[in-house]
Amino acid sequence: MTRYGAMYGPDLTFLGVPACDLSDPASFADADVVIVGAPFDGGTSHRPGTRFGPSAIRQACYLPHDGSRPSLALRVDGLRDLRVYDAGDVEMFSGDIERSLAALESAVYTVSSSGAIPIVLGGDHSIALPDATGVARQHGLGRVSLVHFDAHADTGDIEFGSLHGHGQPMRRLIESGAVRGDRFLQIGLRGYWPGPETLTWMAGQRMRSYEMTELVSRGLDSCLSEAFAIAVDECEGVFLSVDVDVVDPGMAPGTGTPEPGGLTSRQLLDAVRRCCYELPVVGVDVVEVAPPYDHADITAYLGNRVVLEALSAIARRRRDAAGGQRWDPHQPLLDGR
Amino acid sequence: MTRYGAMYGPDLTFLGVPACDLSDPASFADADVVIVGAPFDGGTSHRPGTRFGPSAIRQACYLPHDGSRPSLALRVDGLRDLRVYDAGDVEMFSGDIERSLAALESAVYTVSSSGAIPIVLGGDHSIALPDATGVARQHGLGRVSLVHFDAHADTGDIEFGSLHGHGQPMRRLIESGAVRGDRFLQIGLRGYWPGPETLTWMAGQRMRSYEMTELVSRGLDSCLSEAFAIAVDECEGVFLSVDVDVVDPGMAPGTGTPEPGGLTSRQLLDAVRRCCYELPVVGVDVVEVAPPYDHADITAYLGNRVVLEALSAIARRRRDAAGGQRWDPHQPLLDGR
Amino acid sequence: MTRYGAMYGPDLTFLGVPACDLSDPASFADADVVIVGAPFDGGTSHRPGTRFGPSAIRQACYLPHDGSRPSLALRVDGLRDLRVYDAGDVEMFSGDIERSLAALESAVYTVSSSGAIPIVLGGDHSIALPDATGVARQHGLGRVSLVHFDAHADTGDIEFGSLHGHGQPMRRLIESGAVRGDRFLQIGLRGYWPGPETLTWMAGQRMRSYEMTELVSRGLDSCLSEAFAIAVDECEGVFLSVDVDVVDPGMAPGTGTPEPGGLTSRQLLDAVRRCCYELPVVGVDVVEVAPPYDHADITAYLGNRVVLEALSAIARRRRDAAGGQRWDPHQPLLDGR
Amino acid sequence: MTRYGAMYGPDLTFLGVPACDLSDPASFADADVVIVGAPFDGGTSHRPGTRFGPSAIRQACYLPHDGSRPSLALRVDGLRDLRVYDAGDVEMFSGDIERSLAALESAVYTVSSSGAIPIVLGGDHSIALPDATGVARQHGLGRVSLVHFDAHADTGDIEFGSLHGHGQPMRRLIESGAVRGDRFLQIGLRGYWPGPETLTWMAGQRMRSYEMTELVSRGLDSCLSEAFAIAVDECEGVFLSVDVDVVDPGMAPGTGTPEPGGLTSRQLLDAVRRCCYELPVVGVDVVEVAPPYDHADITAYLGNRVVLEALSAIARRRRDAAGGQRWDPHQPLLDGR
Amino acid sequence: MTRYGAMYGPDLTFLGVPACDLSDPASFADADVVIVGAPFDGGTSHRPGTRFGPSAIRQACYLPHDGSRPSLALRVDGLRDLRVYDAGDVEMFSGDIERSLAALESAVYTVSSSGAIPIVLGGDHSIALPDATGVARQHGLGRVSLVHFDAHADTGDIEFGSLHGHGQPMRRLIESGAVRGDRFLQIGLRGYWPGPETLTWMAGQRMRSYEMTELVSRGLDSCLSEAFAIAVDECEGVFLSVDVDVVDPGMAPGTGTPEPGGLTSRQLLDAVRRCCYELPVVGVDVVEVAPPYDHADITAYLGNRVVLEALSAIARRRRDAAGGQRWDPHQPLLDGR
Amino acid sequence: MTRYGAMYGPDLTFLGVPACDLSDPASFADADVVIVGAPFDGGTSHRPGTRFGPSAIRQACYLPHDGSRPSLALRVDGLRDLRVYDAGDVEMFSGDIERSLAALESAVYTVSSSGAIPIVLGGDHSIALPDATGVARQHGLGRVSLVHFDAHADTGDIEFGSLHGHGQPMRRLIESGAVRGDRFLQIGLRGYWPGPETLTWMAGQRMRSYEMTELVSRGLDSCLSEAFAIAVDECEGVFLSVDVDVVDPGMAPGTGTPEPGGLTSRQLLDAVRRCCYELPVVGVDVVEVAPPYDHADITAYLGNRVVLEALSAIARRRRDAAGGQRWDPHQPLLDGR
Repeated sequence: MTRYGAMYGPDLTFLGVPACDLSDPASFADADVVIVGAPFDGGTSHRPGTRFGPSAIRQACYLPHDGSRPSLALRVDGLRDLRVYDAGDVEMFSGDIERSLAALESAVYTVSSSGAIPIVLGGDHSIALPDATGVARQHGLGRVSLVHFDAHADTGDIEFGSLHGHGQPMRRLIESGAVRGDRFLQIGLRGYWPGPETLTWMAGQRMRSYEMTELVSRGLDSCLSEAFAIAVDECEGVFLSVDVDVVDPGMAPGTGTPEPGGLTSRQLLDAVRRCCYELPVVGVDVVEVAPPYDHADITAYLGNRVVLEALSAIARRRRDAAGGQRWDPHQPLLDGR
Repeated sequence: MTRYGAMYGPDLTFLGVPACDLSDPASFADADVVIVGAPFDGGTSHRPGTRFGPSAIRQACYLPHDGSRPSLALRVDGLRDLRVYDAGDVEMFSGDIERSLAALESAVYTVSSSGAIPIVLGGDHSIALPDATGVARQHGLGRVSLVHFDAHADTGDIEFGSLHGHGQPMRRLIESGAVRGDRFLQIGLRGYWPGPETLTWMAGQRMRSYEMTELVSRGLDSCLSEAFAIAVDECEGVFLSVDVDVVDPGMAPGTGTPEPGGLTSRQLLDAVRRCCYELPVVGVDVVEVAPPYDHADITAYLGNRVVLEALSAIARRRRDAAGGQRWDPHQPLLDGR
Repeated sequence: MTRYGAMYGPDLTFLGVPACDLSDPASFADADVVIVGAPFDGGTSHRPGTRFGPSAIRQACYLPHDGSRPSLALRVDGLRDLRVYDAGDVEMFSGDIERSLAALESAVYTVSSSGAIPIVLGGDHSIALPDATGVARQHGLGRVSLVHFDAHADTGDIEFGSLHGHGQPMRRLIESGAVRGDRFLQIGLRGYWPGPETLTWMAGQRMRSYEMTELVSRGLDSCLSEAFAIAVDECEGVFLSVDVDVVDPGMAPGTGTPEPGGLTSRQLLDAVRRCCYELPVVGVDVVEVAPPYDHADITAYLGNRVVLEALSAIARRRRDAAGGQRWDPHQPLLDGR
Repeated sequence: MTRYGAMYGPDLTFLGVPACDLSDPASFADADVVIVGAPFDGGTSHRPGTRFGPSAIRQACYLPHDGSRPSLALRVDGLRDLRVYDAGDVEMFSGDIERSLAALESAVYTVSSSGAIPIVLGGDHSIALPDATGVARQHGLGRVSLVHFDAHADTGDIEFGSLHGHGQPMRRLIESGAVRGDRFLQIGLRGYWPGPETLTWMAGQRMRSYEMTELVSRGLDSCLSEAFAIAVDECEGVFLSVDVDVVDPGMAPGTGTPEPGGLTSRQLLDAVRRCCYELPVVGVDVVEVAPPYDHADITAYLGNRVVLEALSAIARRRRDAAGGQRWDPHQPLLDGR
Repeated sequence: MTRYGAMYGPDLTFLGVPACDLSDPASFADADVVIVGAPFDGGTSHRPGTRFGPSAIRQACYLPHDGSRPSLALRVDGLRDLRVYDAGDVEMFSGDIERSLAALESAVYTVSSSGAIPIVLGGDHSIALPDATGVARQHGLGRVSLVHFDAHADTGDIEFGSLHGHGQPMRRLIESGAVRGDRFLQIGLRGYWPGPETLTWMAGQRMRSYEMTELVSRGLDSCLSEAFAIAVDECEGVFLSVDVDVVDPGMAPGTGTPEPGGLTSRQLLDAVRRCCYELPVVGVDVVEVAPPYDHADITAYLGNRVVLEALSAIARRRRDAAGGQRWDPHQPLLDGR
Repeated sequence: MTRYGAMYGPDLTFLGVPACDLSDPASFADADVVIVGAPFDGGTSHRPGTRFGPSAIRQACYLPHDGSRPSLALRVDGLRDLRVYDAGDVEMFSGDIERSLAALESAVYTVSSSGAIPIVLGGDHSIALPDATGVARQHGLGRVSLVHFDAHADTGDIEFGSLHGHGQPMRRLIESGAVRGDRFLQIGLRGYWPGPETLTWMAGQRMRSYEMTELVSRGLDSCLSEAFAIAVDECEGVFLSVDVDVVDPGMAPGTGTPEPGGLTSRQLLDAVRRCCYELPVVGVDVVEVAPPYDHADITAYLGNRVVLEALSAIARRRRDAAGGQRWDPHQPLLDGR
């Protein structure tokens, strides 16, 4: 086995799940999910540090790193009820964004074409381009919608002279045809970027972007329901991209471009749960956790829990699909135990 | 007077209330409330530091440390309308959990049997065992219900080879008969612990545990009302145990086992107020404030305010009971001044 | 030009807007808004550091400092649609509060009498006295109401032997007649200060103070609507004073006197937006950002966004007034782009 | 007893020594040393925070706060062999420097005139003016020399329009005649302040200032010996003023105006020891410890140890003077025990 | 293999050396060195957190974790020229010091009796008792001397009612006969602990303790030479115990009981090198690295380098012993390459 | 003027010196020194953040940013006695190292060919390649020696698949012929990198590398004298490259690859002074200041003082060359004032 392992620090897996090696198909042949680290911050326009995101997200838990996490809320063990492997990091030299993104796309495609769901731990949001592209190459260009939690639209054109960077992946995805503009669902936008020209371009692509004002006025859950209905219209799969800066900087300070006025951690976890329980998710990334700006590891902890929430909901979705049940959020914790 | 004083740092009292000495009954004979420090973190399974919790909670206030705190909301002065003393710390050697818990139980019982309400400043949650036991020895085993704010159920059995630790006190309390399982009301649980076996045990004890999903779906206030009704069924007293990690780590980072997705600080303060105003509280502990992981002292400030909120509500409850009034949360601040 | 510039660190303007010089009227003759720095913390009763607030608030943004910020929510560019200048700092020696406040009042009056709206970046809340007085001298004593977001009433009398300090400006404003007591609208009070004597004085002045309990019980938006109606009764202008400690310390740790249980950042931004969109705001200050206690600059970021939210809403109010439109918070971001 | 106590936070004494009350002469009639807190940062030209210096210096120790500290090196217990009291803080409103310095001078003179040595815990270096003046009023104007450890000369004239501030006390002391210019011994200066005009003034006063270059080239101990000889020429007493920024910012980050390239902590402690052992010290201040910029309390710890080193050396000097002995730094720790 | 692995966080080895399992002798049969983690802080009298020391020390390096570290200075690769394994952590429940120390002693003895040198990563200094005892059981009670770098003598008797704790291991070692009192060489003591009674006991044991004053006066290298000569008198082996607080807190803030005025990092590394190159070291521990108080991981980095310096010097000693050479510190880096 | 300005944050100049525009030769035609910012961290192998180095170094000073800094030690004003301009930042997209380095080389050459000395503020050490190349293109390939303060040799070959990165610039400089291998003087190396193969390559180039062991054994000043003699043998100019990690991490924590056991800040400042006073320096860079890992800005302060020390010494060298004098480090500060 020639596993590349960890780009920074010791080689370890997400909460102790088994390791696999992307160069050895047998090592993940039966996988439901493969976790891939994308230790890259070369596309960050401001505070760097997300290169340490994969390592921080993998470790940020006070429980034993034993490859098991039974969810109180969903009554499944996302790490056991699914077969989850961790492929380690893709080598991504932050000084060479084009080469790095290509290497990641190849890795994601390898996972996706094996039938597993890739969960990519960023890294800055530049990686959404190879992440969603790698999945779309398997499931069909334009056949995967994108549910995108973020404070920022990430639809910039050229910045610092480059087509690539953490403010541009969503435009590149639409331009390439990997994802249809009208199957882009953006949740949590706010602030002062991008400007009118880019917004006009977005409108022209028929993207659906929920700014915080609309979310607060109409209610997050209503907006999610509306968005989820769009997501499965003519698309068989959904890619979920979670930029941790969708959460308020007060609750998620360890990030590169903090924009005040975001969701609470609780809201994000509930929204991720709904997304992965209600929709046919075929790929996930969790990005923009920047440990140098984190305090007491709280942003890394949040990133870790976003991954677990996604895994738990995917596991529960599969179990309920098999059993014809439906999860009830009103059910008391100890009922039926 | 042979007051033990402070285990760490200078000897000081909670916001300047008078000191008392547990070995000298006369020093607190007229007390309504006695504050006791439990500077112990030997039961912490992960980040230590709660040994400095009592000192941090006592000091975390920008106002003069003059033994007076008139509550804007409740129109009472919890430190003056009640006779509140601070007994200093109990000596608790973090390397010897059994001896330490025994010493604390003895101190709490001393307070409780004097007719005062003990408020214990932790320390890790291991101390809930001696805290609630000490109170139950006075009020009757099984006659005190337990309202428990926490991210974690703390009902583990044996961990690291020990019956004691901050993940286990609630099981020990039920096993010993100090508290009835069906009078355990847990608010704010979430995450990935404990596993099914322990949950089954909890269900078998007929505990009532409100996971965050239920709290969000049904509303925190509805759940509290339901829980409070149970709490006073066949129990004359209520012990309130507040683990600061019930609040989201973004708002309370200084703690040992942070679990994203919790209550806001505002929600916790309002819930503590309701508990102490509506119920016959006979003991309180505030635990898991870990200063080494705190930033700008915000978690210590929160712990301090939880104590004040409890004191204010107890004072108001007594005043209203005497006067036949009822506090109205809609009343404008300056009305009737 | 003899612009004083920055008291601490390099001379720079708010997000790159043009500089002006208060001693040169021509340099801001056409201004809609003039930003003034008040780098003063001599009135702070506890944690100092707000002297670095103006510099931190001016810089706390990850976008280019290019004097443009198109608001996603309000569809205006507060820095371009208004003519905004930055006059740099007023020299305020923290060891001499009387001289410092006088210098600031003079600067604010200079701005206000030129017809522009002053936006003052604090500094501790002592500066509200010269800020509101400077504006009232222009618009008429008693003709400007005050909308005041804060955890504290700031109506103390004499503290540390001084009439001035960050806990007293509101009393001084009423005593001097600059602002009518019954046109003081305070939002977000909580905690344990001031005591009954001061509250009685406040009631006597017919101030309207919304403590957090009332805000939670009745709803923030209802309370704001009620307050806004009072604000424009017999007053032609509104001064908006935002103490960042109105937000919960978990989301705004970088401040001097943190009081747990506050608003979320989202709530503050929405409330500031409503205030500046619905009311005839003639002056603003943003105070109590204390960088030494800030982490990852999140409190400075929040202060920066409060300023931008105010500017954006003022710009939108002017546009809608001119065009007879009304902003709709339900409108999707990309509709009509 | 009407002891003012602590201006910030709880009332506590330096490592648990007995409290005294400056308004009650009997409470410190037999004192050898009286500690006075000067919680003032109104004179700070840059980073504030020294108002919390007295509280931090008093507490920064991991040993019991029991009023005893036997020095390994000097074989005395500075807190027991001397009669040491702590008078608490002087009320110093940081917004009013003149009133604050006057109050402190009065307090220092009260101590000095009682026959005790005042040790003042700052606070910013503005306080050296009242500290040394208060002592000189007792021992004779011009009869007390000043040994001054600092990165900065603190001989500025008018700054920010004020005669007072932490960059000016040494000029004021010479101008007033309290201390002779040619009995000013400055150790550790470096960097880029003051400019030529002030240096010319200093030379005109015949001050003796050792810049780091000279200290490194000639050796710190040689320079100290030379300086100490001057200090006792025509002066009966020595005031020792220790600005913690004389130490390199790497080892003492918690300070207001850090200047790289300073002494090590070890060098400072050894130099303070020599000063207090070899010279007739009649007053001490330790200034510029700024907790908001401190990490892991290391600068506060250093300030605490500077005080203890001074006390230990004074105690040893007295013992050796009585017994005709001389301390030998080569003696092994356990010899003669 | 039933390797216990890591008590906190993911299971990883020191810089990527191979793992072994103490319950499987074959897994380390050919070892020269076995690294053992002692994640224990139950004996800490003040700031806890050393339980995370083993994990932090293992990881604190920016180079690939590839099990190779060629020393520039010593021209050996301590991780390759020696056969080094990492046995993971011993389970040490911080709430039960007696059980924890017994488990560690057993582990150390297992390593030592296999012929390998144990290097124990602490953990608080309580662990020196089992560490040195485990080695002495193999090499002969009283036949192993102890070279002890520390700010503190650690010779306390009973503290907090316990015979065990991080201030007492050296007394227990002498009392038990594991180490002869007159073969205890302590380097770097300073400050105000212990008191005369304990020092008298130490003198009675004929310990040799070098306080910083003596080290500075006579020179560190002279003192080391003297101490090393004693260490090999009638002892065949040397145990090296390095408490990171021997270094000045300015350079090693992440520790529990910081005492200003210590060695520089450079001095410690050079001293450890000399010790391991010149003496027959049979065991090592590196203790008191407390990550919660560390900044930018600098104390953990120092702990990591102390281990590497020891390994490199042991490797070079063996090579020179075999080849009859002697290392020359004057040799330029590139000479002979 | 089309000055690019600042890549991150507001546009400001080094301590307030005049701005110039590299695209406008007239703007710096009379310059002695031009400061250039290189906000790049795309070549960092571990902790990123040096992109914020230029901004941090420019601002890290508590004195007025007025373009004047009279050196106490050297009795010159490096910012006034020399004509110093600040050209702002070069746009360097951290995701594209080749393009970024080319842009910087062009900027440095522009400065150098104008006759001014470029001082480049990094950024990671990748920039030494364009920095020294830009200078050598003007002064002659192989005609400029390189004095290099660093913990690391930076002579790696290919890393992460790239010829460029912060571990490789020195090899590239030699390979290209820009700098002769035998005119490379490296001061302060230590630790465990590079390995034997690279060291053999270095020896083959006849580089002269002073590891800390040699510096400590022989004395830093002796080694510098030896190195300086080599530097001016057959070379007319010297490029000085200062990696702040040459200083011990305890005193300079804000850096990417901290290696314990380095110089003190004092030693570095004195060495930089000697280098710039004794040698014909034609270019300087100061690199690897990483603000996200800095505490209380102490590493940025150090970087700022390294620049000032270099400027002061260059100014003094020119003055003494003109006046035939020689600076005397023994001269007391106030002599001759």
